[in-house]
Amino acid sequence: MPETTATPEPIQRLIEALHRLPGVGPKSAQRLAYHLVRTSPQEADALARAIVEARERIRYCSRCLNLTEADPCAVCTDPRRDQSLVCVVEQPLDVLAIERSGIYRGLYHVLHGILNPMEGIGPEHLHLSELRARVEAGGVAEVIMATNPSLEGEATVMYVQRLLSPLGVRVTRLARGLPSGADLEYADAVTLARALEGRQEI
Amino acid sequence: MPETTATPEPIQRLIEALHRLPGVGPKSAQRLAYHLVRTSPQEADALARAIVEARERIRYCSRCLNLTEADPCAVCTDPRRDQSLVCVVEQPLDVLAIERSGIYRGLYHVLHGILNPMEGIGPEHLHLSELRARVEAGGVAEVIMATNPSLEGEATVMYVQRLLSPLGVRVTRLARGLPSGADLEYADAVTLARALEGRQEI
Repeated sequence: MPETTATPEPIQRLIEALHRLPGVGPKSAQRLAYHLVRTSPQEADALARAIVEARERIRYCSRCLNLTEADPCAVCTDPRRDQSLVCVVEQPLDVLAIERSGIYRGLYHVLHGILNPMEGIGPEHLHLSELRARVEAGGVAEVIMATNPSLEGEATVMYVQRLLSPLGVRVTRLARGLPSGADLEYADAVTLARALEGRQEI
Repeated sequence: MPETTATPEPIQRLIEALHRLPGVGPKSAQRLAYHLVRTSPQEADALARAIVEARERIRYCSRCLNLTEADPCAVCTDPRRDQSLVCVVEQPLDVLAIERSGIYRGLYHVLHGILNPMEGIGPEHLHLSELRARVEAGGVAEVIMATNPSLEGEATVMYVQRLLSPLGVRVTRLARGLPSGADLEYADAVTLARALEGRQEI
């Protein structure tokens, strides 16, 4: 059989670049590439420009290590926020999730990772020395660990607790229990066990 | 509550550009944007450049209207391909699908759309005059309609058949029947009806 319709090379390159994105499989990459080639020049250029500009203008906040355009970031410099509370998260998207809850009024500290010995990620790979320095600098009354409720998240909580306890700061973590709207009948055993352990007076 | 963590504006713009892509929801757009901001400069630049380059270098083949870098495209100029066969498809991705089947050795004609009166897409919006001109120019013995087996696809088949029949060209369409590997028990009524109507001698 003749094999002449190899996808044109510029499209092939675009498919490969899209396929490297998280959660974009080969089929999606193909669909997106053909869309980008055929859509309005405005839409395609806007995306290419948005990528370049975001890369150029976004940096890490020197205090909380969240992504920001201005350093320090808007959260760190907001006088209405409680400077004595620091919530430690794994990644910038977790900050957005906590902000959506609408009840947190303190600051953040983004680790940009989680302890994972299996993948060779040790304390030196996270921004833990910066966290320690913030607490040592004074003014922090409580560090709230908001890592994922996973083995790695737990290990990170334990590590931070040991790291900071000599400094006399209070280290807490998010409550475990039934998620809002959950069906008791379908809750997994660990979740239910944690909900029982953490039961509260009414 | 203080609302200071509005996503930095360059990231917000990137999220919006990604969200405009087909099949990319708001959550995926957010995840992709944060990935692109934090990934290696090579990866992000490669994507931005691939978009711009594909847009600059890809054009429509003046014969078959498929996407191509060289005009006419590699399929149209391949001497091993049967120039008397033209397969009509809705969009460039359909060409890839038919090429994957590995048994087609003719040429293509990409309509870039399908008749859809409900959405106001009439014959004048498709590349039908170009198809007619190709047949009128001579050398085409058969036009194979490979539009989707949908109402719109059928309407397009009928229209093309009427358009080309005065020119004495043979117009065929892809067979309908059970998809390979299908389970008869779960086949829908229409598919089964078409499979019966189209039954073949063994």
